Amino acid sequence: MSQEHKIYKPKPISGFPEWLPEYRAVELQWMDKIRKVFESYGFCSIETPSVEEIEVLSAKGGETEKEIYTLHRLQAEAHDDKDARLALHFDLTVPMARYVAQHYNDLVFPFKRYQIQKSWRGERPQKGRFREFYQCDIDVINLDALPLHFDAELPAVMFEAYQSLDIPPVEIRLSNRKIIFGYLQGLGIKDTAVVTRTLDKLDKIGAENVVKILKDSGLPADIAQKCLALAEIKTADAGFIDRVKSLNVRHELLDKGVEELTFVMNNLLHLPQGSLKVDLSIIRGLDYYTGTILETYLKDVEFGAIGSGGRYDDLASSFINQKLPGIGVSIGLTRLFAKLLDEGLIKPGAKSPTQVLVVLPEEARRAEASATAHTLRQRGYNVELFHSDSKLKRQLAYAERKGIPYVWFPPFKDGQPHEVKNMTSGEQTPADPAKWLI
Amino acid sequence: MSQEHKIYKPKPISGFPEWLPEYRAVELQWMDKIRKVFESYGFCSIETPSVEEIEVLSAKGGETEKEIYTLHRLQAEAHDDKDARLALHFDLTVPMARYVAQHYNDLVFPFKRYQIQKSWRGERPQKGRFREFYQCDIDVINLDALPLHFDAELPAVMFEAYQSLDIPPVEIRLSNRKIIFGYLQGLGIKDTAVVTRTLDKLDKIGAENVVKILKDSGLPADIAQKCLALAEIKTADAGFIDRVKSLNVRHELLDKGVEELTFVMNNLLHLPQGSLKVDLSIIRGLDYYTGTILETYLKDVEFGAIGSGGRYDDLASSFINQKLPGIGVSIGLTRLFAKLLDEGLIKPGAKSPTQVLVVLPEEARRAEASATAHTLRQRGYNVELFHSDSKLKRQLAYAERKGIPYVWFPPFKDGQPHEVKNMTSGEQTPADPAKWLI
Repeated sequence: MSQEHKIYKPKPISGFPEWLPEYRAVELQWMDKIRKVFESYGFCSIETPSVEEIEVLSAKGGETEKEIYTLHRLQAEAHDDKDARLALHFDLTVPMARYVAQHYNDLVFPFKRYQIQKSWRGERPQKGRFREFYQCDIDVINLDALPLHFDAELPAVMFEAYQSLDIPPVEIRLSNRKIIFGYLQGLGIKDTAVVTRTLDKLDKIGAENVVKILKDSGLPADIAQKCLALAEIKTADAGFIDRVKSLNVRHELLDKGVEELTFVMNNLLHLPQGSLKVDLSIIRGLDYYTGTILETYLKDVEFGAIGSGGRYDDLASSFINQKLPGIGVSIGLTRLFAKLLDEGLIKPGAKSPTQVLVVLPEEARRAEASATAHTLRQRGYNVELFHSDSKLKRQLAYAERKGIPYVWFPPFKDGQPHEVKNMTSGEQTPADPAKWLI
Repeated sequence: MSQEHKIYKPKPISGFPEWLPEYRAVELQWMDKIRKVFESYGFCSIETPSVEEIEVLSAKGGETEKEIYTLHRLQAEAHDDKDARLALHFDLTVPMARYVAQHYNDLVFPFKRYQIQKSWRGERPQKGRFREFYQCDIDVINLDALPLHFDAELPAVMFEAYQSLDIPPVEIRLSNRKIIFGYLQGLGIKDTAVVTRTLDKLDKIGAENVVKILKDSGLPADIAQKCLALAEIKTADAGFIDRVKSLNVRHELLDKGVEELTFVMNNLLHLPQGSLKVDLSIIRGLDYYTGTILETYLKDVEFGAIGSGGRYDDLASSFINQKLPGIGVSIGLTRLFAKLLDEGLIKPGAKSPTQVLVVLPEEARRAEASATAHTLRQRGYNVELFHSDSKLKRQLAYAERKGIPYVWFPPFKDGQPHEVKNMTSGEQTPADPAKWLI
């Protein structure tokens, strides 16, 4: 072994997570389960390139504030760097809107797609912030108008997706933008932006501070209190209707919002009790939401939203002259996974997918042992043939260190039966490779 | 709908492929199948970040010739662009070597990993060249020495992976670097690089041109012919041994290579006839290969190698002071998929994963229809409830346009039975959502 060469000792890159095999196994399981739930509701998979043109990423406006990573060819001449117009996407929503606009003629509407992909943001590294992360998104897009049906379907899909994972219980908090904007308009408030931005902070800064800020912004004390009163409505069922009514504010948009949210709640009655609530302090910062909005939280772990989404009227308007309303939700997979890992709430998976290690008794019996492994593999098991005819002790130690649950002993001498050892119980019994069941 | 705003019509980005849902469904199926084969041999999944430090990517030397994409934060100040040291990986081999070195103390050796991920190369766009593409890699890495066992296992895994896909038949061509280098040394040739580079082109330029180039480089005519004679050996079985012997060149390294290749061929006898051959013109350009090398080709489609790999002594030596020999193979998924798509050899999948569309008879029966969908979904089917109580004709048209094979009719009136319509046969029969089987 050469000791002379220089060693470049690699370090983890902040914000770009990487897991050991036993945790990657869990992450992969998560993705499989989430995908299965998405498909069970008829969402099809699409995948968009990692890059978009910068013009596409900034088409919605304001989004360039998110730190975008642009690409440059290392060896490009400055005047020849045509790729400088390419950048990594920072979410899966903009690429989806672009995809729908671009392939418009080849898609069947309502178009239901899921996308489980990485996104990138050049944020300052800090705990819980990732610069490369997985998101699991579903959206439904339709031409001209989108039935309210989907406003109830998507929270259900999202809930089932979380429920399919082995994680602490989650809660979906629902609201509707029409309620808050209709209500504020009903109160005669012109500059709704200040109010919504302030109410959005209710959980963080508390009621007193909300009222203080609203009064400082010029609202009369009773109006500020009225704003607060709406945002404080949290109910586990349709009880929010009466509470909104009792505030005695009237506006057409408000009525519409209440009607929509009622429909949604009525169609989510099959979800387990305590997994859903109306929370009118949910605002969602993104400009493009126009109706149903939702956020998901871990009920017992102090943490921000682990998923969110909402309805939008027209996301693809920058790319196509056709109204394409939609609704979408997004699960922040990496964010959630890393948090639970950090909290010790992820039980590591196996270091190896192998279920059965076939022992190699001696080199002369390789063909026979290999055939045994082949038979087991064809029957659907994950099987390794040990890679050398080492002492049995070493072969067993390998199975133990990789957490392989069964060790198979083909005949060591002609006429002997096959045997299989359960590594957990220690029990060893005769078995037929063509018939054995785990 | 606002007609005033500016439309930015997005165009496909050359070299960054994107498929319609019905083809993405096939690509996803391919990945599932390949992964299943990899896991059936005990390879565990890992995933590395999309980026590496530039120092890591260029550690093997020469690799920077591959056009690397570096990342820059769009809004970074020039003096603050710390991310400029990050670049997208151009293959999965370098990241794997870095991963093994970095997590060395946490891995169990021999470490068997698979990686199905995208890589990026800033190549000039041309047909069949991708700038973003999927590769499916498996490697086995061990400490100090790696048993020959794996030289036979990896071609078998690779073959099974291809065989699991619905593609034209493939053929694996095997050689061993020790044979060619031992042979050339046995002939007394000092500068083997010129010879191997020329022999590597045998298939492209033909025997006459190979001999001509070798003679022009200064080799005597009989030696040039001898070089050619080795590279022309192609056999379907161990017959290559006698043909190499008959060339009467002696060298220890040559003997070792023949011995290794014989072991590999003997342990691949279970593969179907015609799927494997020894081809001593296979050279593989990459410097780091030291033993077994292989390439896979489509037997009936004119195209370059669709997969390749080989054994290396020490890939991670730049990152760790520990010898880590390995063997790996890589399936060029995007390259193969795009080629077969281009040739019309990919049969499109379904536009939607939905198996059953449940009709919504009328709004008043929504809860009932929704419960039917729920029952079917819990029994493992992919199910959509139609999103509005439109005319039946419209609901059926949706199923047809999305290629949904079954349409379910819940009772339109109390007391009616459920019925299900097979959209292919047109047959419609009574059915129980709790018992029906596709």
